[in-house]
Order: sequence, then structure tokens, then C-alpha cells
Amino acid sequence: MIISVPATSANLGPGFDSLGLSLSLRNRVHIQPSKFFSVSIKGEGANNPRLKGNNLFINIFNDHYTHLTGKRGVFRFRFYNQIPLSRGLGSSSAVIVSAIASAYSAAGVNISRRKLLNLALHYEHHPDNITPAVMGGFNVSVVENNKVYSQRKRIPGYLKAVVVIPDKPISTAHSRTTLPRSYRKDDAIYNLSHSSLLTACFFNESWEMLRIAARDKFHQVARMKNLPELFDVQKLAIENNVLMSTLSGSGSTFFNMVYKEDAKPLLEKFQARFPSFRCAIFDFDNDGVLFRD
Amino acid sequence: MIISVPATSANLGPGFDSLGLSLSLRNRVHIQPSKFFSVSIKGEGANNPRLKGNNLFINIFNDHYTHLTGKRGVFRFRFYNQIPLSRGLGSSSAVIVSAIASAYSAAGVNISRRKLLNLALHYEHHPDNITPAVMGGFNVSVVENNKVYSQRKRIPGYLKAVVVIPDKPISTAHSRTTLPRSYRKDDAIYNLSHSSLLTACFFNESWEMLRIAARDKFHQVARMKNLPELFDVQKLAIENNVLMSTLSGSGSTFFNMVYKEDAKPLLEKFQARFPSFRCAIFDFDNDGVLFRD
Repeated sequence: MIISVPATSANLGPGFDSLGLSLSLRNRVHIQPSKFFSVSIKGEGANNPRLKGNNLFINIFNDHYTHLTGKRGVFRFRFYNQIPLSRGLGSSSAVIVSAIASAYSAAGVNISRRKLLNLALHYEHHPDNITPAVMGGFNVSVVENNKVYSQRKRIPGYLKAVVVIPDKPISTAHSRTTLPRSYRKDDAIYNLSHSSLLTACFFNESWEMLRIAARDKFHQVARMKNLPELFDVQKLAIENNVLMSTLSGSGSTFFNMVYKEDAKPLLEKFQARFPSFRCAIFDFDNDGVLFRD
Repeated sequence: MIISVPATSANLGPGFDSLGLSLSLRNRVHIQPSKFFSVSIKGEGANNPRLKGNNLFINIFNDHYTHLTGKRGVFRFRFYNQIPLSRGLGSSSAVIVSAIASAYSAAGVNISRRKLLNLALHYEHHPDNITPAVMGGFNVSVVENNKVYSQRKRIPGYLKAVVVIPDKPISTAHSRTTLPRSYRKDDAIYNLSHSSLLTACFFNESWEMLRIAARDKFHQVARMKNLPELFDVQKLAIENNVLMSTLSGSGSTFFNMVYKEDAKPLLEKFQARFPSFRCAIFDFDNDGVLFRD
């Protein structure tokens, strides 16, 4: 069986810990019953021996598979990873979601997307990456009583993501410590109203107003200070009139949304200006987690 | 000419200073050129002599009419007011919007809704009442550089508002002083995510999830303490499984949204329990300000 999960861009602009969307860049895992346990990794993380040994995926898979079947299965796992690690593109959410989905699939037990999402919440307490990873598309999420409540909107094919992936990460843990413990009322209302407007822009397909709606006062500037080139990335994006340009998750990737025809010219400008960064165009994903036999 | 403007319910749940919707309860003003200036008021405010003399409407009307025509006009104004005063149903927003609309109409100058909204913002600095008053329907607004940016959704006819209007106001000014000057990060994210989800629920017409999305940690409880019966109003609403039950504006009215068929039974329960309060069923309005010759 094959399970695949998309990359995600969360913390979208003002939508701290709530808004996220998924990109057509996937981690796939092939699972086969086997006499011997084995793991192989191709793509992102292939050269990281620590990932093979103490693997978050394997731990979560084993927990759920044992819980479902009462026994420990022996499988051959082959990972084909496209999602960069520690760059704010939801690689750990993809691991969590794919591990749970794989355990259910290997045990022959159906699982609804909603249940999968609530199980994923045990491992990642913010819903903004796991929701689009499971559901696909643009998602708004809240957590109440350890459950995720979310709404989803498909993203049309005439929009593209142009992402700029720096050659180094911003540590999420360090990044969180740079954030304040409280917000001034004005700033709280600023982000609340902009996050709500950004949501409405996606549902109304009012893309042009995203230039206003995507502004943030909670986290981006504080985090971008850890990697000041990101201010230049955002400046270049805004000068080129992108629809939105926001830090992806807690960084270091920058996410930009443009109309299809504007993607390539923007990509070329990013590549010329930031030659050591990886710049790429992605479609948006509307599928979320996919199961294949 | 006749200008009419609907009542509005703003600060919807978590959507502090941003989310609002309009109700089919209107203030109308008839304006006729006349030899003598005169004002008559029927309905709400008819017994308040202060309203006739130093009238916010007349001041705003004169400012704009003089600006547009270079002269001071003489008119007969007849007001037919349905919106209760000082109860959180947008009566002052209705006055502001209708005064500007009336001045343009009397001067024979067309005005777009967007321009009218931005002019109204000079008199009321929060956009959550003026936007639905102008646009009708459910609206999300932000203010950037003294302009309102908003998105709108029509509210279907199978939904009704059941409002509970106490026999006394909560002072907005006093009410604001009871609010904190900053919010804990968790609470800021709570309201941000819930306000975004509430927005998505309206656009997706996912009414049932409003029961979760409409929860607030910013202002309702602090304000309701000024009129503790409101806790009983909300409790009764929630026991009766309403879709949402929120303080309207800064109170004292409580706004409840239900399916059409649930409106009358709920109204009767409110009437029986709160005999001194005015309880009423309203349709939602999707028209906003209306001009008639």
C-alpha cells in the first residue's frame, strides 16, 4: 500500500496557529508486509542516519498498529520524501499524518479524515499544518476540547505558489521564544480582523484583497529577524505585486501566491537574487492525504 | 427621497471590531426641499427632545450637503425609526450612514457603497456596524490607512434572528473600560482562530459548526457582568440549541441565530422567562442602505 501526504504552509500571514493550505509536494511511503523490518529513505532526509534509526514515523505507526491489531507487525517501509525538513513546510505534520494513516491502512481498518485529524492532534498541538495535510486545500481550524473543528475551501488551478526555501532553518523552538506572551489589544484585533478577512477572501475568491488581508502583527517580523534576508525576499515579492507573501509556518521558507502567468517571471527574479536558496513553483493541492493499495 | 438603513449586530462572538451582519429592521428618513427647516421623529427616539435639537444626523447631513453643493439646503426631515437606541443594534451607525447617503441623494450626486463606507468611517472608527449597514448581509471588515476593506456573504432566508432587547442599555463607553488593554497570547489566538472559523462557516453555510466557532474570550463575559441577566439569556439560548448566541455589539441586546422553524418556539421561551425584555424575530437583511426617489 502507498500513503502520501502533501506539504503545507501554515501560520498564513495573520492566521497564527489557525490558517493553512496544502501544496502539491508530497511525502510518499510504500508499506509491504515482510519477514524483516526495514526502512529506506529516498529524497529529503536520505542522508540523515538519525531519521532511519529513531524514526517518529515508526513510533507512531507501531503505537496505532498495535492498538488496532493487538500485535506488532513486521513491514518494509520505503519513504520517498519531497518535503524539505525544518523549513516550515509541514514535514513533521506529514510524518504524523502518514504514520497514522499507514497504521490504519496496514491494519485494514478504515478511518475518516476527521478521525485521522483528531488523532494527529495528539502529536502536534497546533492544527494549522495537520488540517491541510489531511484535508487538502485552504483550511481554517480551531481546537476545542482536544478536537479540531475546521472548514475547507478548494484552491483554483489558476493560482500558483512560488516558494523560497533558504539554505538554513529557523529553529521552531527558538522561534517561539522570540514571540511575546501577550499582545496589545490593537494588535490582537488587527490580526483577528485580518485573519477573518483573509479567510473570506479565499472563500469569495477575492484574491486581490489578500494584499491587505495577509498582513500580520503577531509573529512574522520577530521570526524574520532570525534570518534577515527574508525581509528582502518579502520586499521583492511585494514589488512584484504578488497576491500574498508570508512566512511559511515558523520559517524559514517564504510562501508567495500569484496568478499562474506570474509564477515563472517571479521565480526567475528570486533565483537571480537569492542564488543559494531553493526557489520553486508548486501547484496547490486539494486532495490532502491519499491512500492507494 | 427616502433613505433607509438596517439595524446591525456587530462584534459577533469572537469577531471583535470586525464581524457584523444586518437585520431587517430599518430606520427610514424622508427628505423634502422645503421653505422651512423641520424635523419630525416617529418610532424610536420620538419622545427624546434632545434628538430633535442637536441631531447627529443633521450635522453630518449639513457637512456633506454643503461640501457637495457649496450651499446650505433647507429641508423637511421625517424620521421613521425602528432601531432601538443604545442597545447594540447599530442605531448610531444607521444615523451616520443615512445622513451621508441623504446628503448625496439631496445633492443629486451618486455615491458608491464603498465610498459611502469610507466616509462613514470618519464618524465611527470601528467598521463592524457601518459595513453591514451599508452592504447588507454578513460582513468581515478591516481598517487600513483609514479605509475599510471588507468581504460580504448573503444570509439565506431559512435563517432567522431572535433578539432579546433588555429594558436598559449597557453604556458603550463604560463597557469599553471594563475590557483589558492586552490579551494573553492563548486568548488572542483563540479569538483569531474562532473569528476566522466563524467567517468560514458563514461562507460555507456550515451553520452547525457556529456553535463552536461563535465562542469568545475577548469581551462578552466582561460586558455581560454589567447586566447579569444576560448570562441567563445565553444559557436559555444554548439549552435550546441555537446556532449562535452572542452579545450584539457592546450590548445590551442578545443576538441569537436559528433555523426558521425554531424561531417562534424560542421567542416564546424568551418572552415567558424575560417578560420585561423586548423579544422579537427578525429576518436577515441583504440589502444594506437603500435609496428611493
